[in-house]
Amino acid sequence: MRALRDPIRLIPLLFLAAILIGTALLSLPIATAGEDAAPLLTALFTATSAVSVTGLIVTDTPTYWSPFGQVVILLLFQIGGFGIMTAATLFGLMAGRSFGLRQRIATQVERSRLETGDTASVLKLVLAITLVVEGLVALILTLQFAFSYGMPPGEALWHGVFHSVSAFNNAGFSSFSDSVMSYQSDPVILGPIMLSIILGALGFPVFQDFRARRMDWRRWSLHTKMTVTATLGLLVAGFAAMLAMEWDNPATLGPMSLGSKILNAAFHSVMPRTAGFNSLDVGSFEQETLMANYFLMFIGGGSAGTAGGIKVTTFAVLFAIVLSEILGRRDAGMFGRRFGHAVERQALAITALAGALVFGATTYIASITTLPLEEVLFECISAFATVGMSTGITADLPPSAQLVIIALMFIGRVGTITVATALALGRRERPYRFAEENPIVG
Amino acid sequence: MRALRDPIRLIPLLFLAAILIGTALLSLPIATAGEDAAPLLTALFTATSAVSVTGLIVTDTPTYWSPFGQVVILLLFQIGGFGIMTAATLFGLMAGRSFGLRQRIATQVERSRLETGDTASVLKLVLAITLVVEGLVALILTLQFAFSYGMPPGEALWHGVFHSVSAFNNAGFSSFSDSVMSYQSDPVILGPIMLSIILGALGFPVFQDFRARRMDWRRWSLHTKMTVTATLGLLVAGFAAMLAMEWDNPATLGPMSLGSKILNAAFHSVMPRTAGFNSLDVGSFEQETLMANYFLMFIGGGSAGTAGGIKVTTFAVLFAIVLSEILGRRDAGMFGRRFGHAVERQALAITALAGALVFGATTYIASITTLPLEEVLFECISAFATVGMSTGITADLPPSAQLVIIALMFIGRVGTITVATALALGRRERPYRFAEENPIVG
Ligand SMILES: [K+]
Ligand SMILES: [K+]
Repeated sequence: MRALRDPIRLIPLLFLAAILIGTALLSLPIATAGEDAAPLLTALFTATSAVSVTGLIVTDTPTYWSPFGQVVILLLFQIGGFGIMTAATLFGLMAGRSFGLRQRIATQVERSRLETGDTASVLKLVLAITLVVEGLVALILTLQFAFSYGMPPGEALWHGVFHSVSAFNNAGFSSFSDSVMSYQSDPVILGPIMLSIILGALGFPVFQDFRARRMDWRRWSLHTKMTVTATLGLLVAGFAAMLAMEWDNPATLGPMSLGSKILNAAFHSVMPRTAGFNSLDVGSFEQETLMANYFLMFIGGGSAGTAGGIKVTTFAVLFAIVLSEILGRRDAGMFGRRFGHAVERQALAITALAGALVFGATTYIASITTLPLEEVLFECISAFATVGMSTGITADLPPSAQLVIIALMFIGRVGTITVATALALGRRERPYRFAEENPIVG
Repeated sequence: MRALRDPIRLIPLLFLAAILIGTALLSLPIATAGEDAAPLLTALFTATSAVSVTGLIVTDTPTYWSPFGQVVILLLFQIGGFGIMTAATLFGLMAGRSFGLRQRIATQVERSRLETGDTASVLKLVLAITLVVEGLVALILTLQFAFSYGMPPGEALWHGVFHSVSAFNNAGFSSFSDSVMSYQSDPVILGPIMLSIILGALGFPVFQDFRARRMDWRRWSLHTKMTVTATLGLLVAGFAAMLAMEWDNPATLGPMSLGSKILNAAFHSVMPRTAGFNSLDVGSFEQETLMANYFLMFIGGGSAGTAGGIKVTTFAVLFAIVLSEILGRRDAGMFGRRFGHAVERQALAITALAGALVFGATTYIASITTLPLEEVLFECISAFATVGMSTGITADLPPSAQLVIIALMFIGRVGTITVATALALGRRERPYRFAEENPIVG
């Protein structure tokens, strides 16, 4: 009952409940296409991947799962995406009384003027945006599948809706066995998916700012300015890196026309933001492309949206601190504002915990398998940042490694700090402060 | 002339001068054992590796270089180690007037009560410790080489002195072709080397505290407490990891007796601290052992000593911040003291710059070679943290990759912040502060 009064404990519990219900449904014999019911680990892995909107899979979605199973997966990632969009915001509204991190989140939410929306208005706005974006994208995809590829209407609608919901929620699940690789030269398929992913990954606070202040840059909150700028910067950087690093790769961009090269480099600059579809074979990426993807996936997308990773604002705060340190300035900040001490420490803690988690998981999986380190690291970052891209090793991982991936997806979605704080809750703030003393660092 | 008034610019320039003089000396025909003089890149690489006390090599030290060349290398790493011990401290004493980072360093040095020593006393103490430790270790090694291994007295003395100086300065150069692998079962050789490395890696401020306050823990500065505790913690963790991960490896600990297993695991728990000798074949390490070494090497040793890496105090500050964030506490700190905002930001900036540097270098070298990513990453961390261990790829790297390694060794030794600040110097602090506003992070 304590959890119910304590919103920071409530979020992990709600996600856990959704995962357990999903696991139960996917364990039913009716959920699989074949005779046998799915093994428990397969059902748990798939449910976690769906609720956490990651998209890593241990079985081929369209052939292993029955229509019922696929609808369950669709509902799970819709619920997961909607849940994260609203939970982070509502949580901020509810947590106004408490200390420490909770207080800070509340303060930030307040500063971003989210207090103007109450619970009902938050839910209404999230629902409206979700329905409009998913509806429009589903319509375009369905028409294209039906008219350009000659699919029967029902089939076209199913694939259109599945990919549209999967895209806006950054889920990365596909109802095709080869993700969207068969459509790698079709901008009418890839374009709407990309746009929908970017919108979903901006996060709810940005939408609310858009609604309240329209497109007037000067009136936007610092959070919106930073999210939009960092997102654009990372998209451009990712696009340039993909184009330069894969240009000659005979297994990816190499044999393509210039137009297709640009389309697919653009598509794969959006994927680490953290959608997880693929129009290229990720397993054939060059080593340096994997490195660039480590970086982009780890950062992820916007806060309180469907994206994962440490979030673009977290990265931007760290970047500003490093810059101010190099320039010898007293304050770190952006766009004519300085950051508070609390948000700086929070950004550091989030990044350090994320790094430690990925490092630990990679070391463990490397020690129990003989898989190449770069593929294990890719898999762990993809799981933690709820990206869902894979070099193809997911299904080959031993059970204990799959359990580690499940834990990464869950913690990555719920938030390292949320999980850690929930575990540590109940400690009291000291009633006094220690004297300041500083070590020499560096 | 501006550099002379500006100590933060002076340090990189002095190191650069030492490297250039070393390169010139090693380019002389007399420096090589063979007929031809060393190519410029080989001389530059070796001089940088020696002055930065790294120990990465592109040629076999005892067979490629003449006795003259080997004495030059010995002098270069002695000068490099002595230089870092004194420079960081003197620099702190000189920089009392300036702004930003420089002010902070000065403040920290003051808080650590280093102001009690003037320039002459700093030099005298460093010299005394160096002579005593190097002399004692050289004596033990020489006697052991002469009496247990039947070396002629001159040869025993040469190898004893070379390894003793190399150990205390954390240089990692060896006058044997296989480092100390031939002595992997001899605690009389490995033991003194280990102790000397640990002492050198503690850093000068710790020595000064030891002298001023003897072994009275309660009177030690926070810096000394943190350095000693973190060093011990990392040694124990490294020892446990080496023992567990390499226990069964037929190419390393596998075939050894229990005593030798323990001795070599202990030796290799000290090496990432950042000495760089090896009693085991690093190229045969398991993947998970490489991962553990990434972590330990990146952290490195104590500040203002002969060790590299981001330093144990930097790591400890980050660790304390994460912990306080999880517990929802207002202040981060250790041992009944809280850290100032400035040192927290400095620790973050040092770590982020180090990470970015290693990441960028690894991506570049991975893109121009077909070497396994885990070996490239190992090489880059080893260079940046001036460790000097290698999986054996150094000599096979193309020239541009060797230049990148040279840059990593230089920046790693002089300090990321020092280099970045030196480049950015001349900017002015704003005369006003912006209003505070915070984004939502995580
Ligand atoms: K995803
Ligand atoms: K070294």
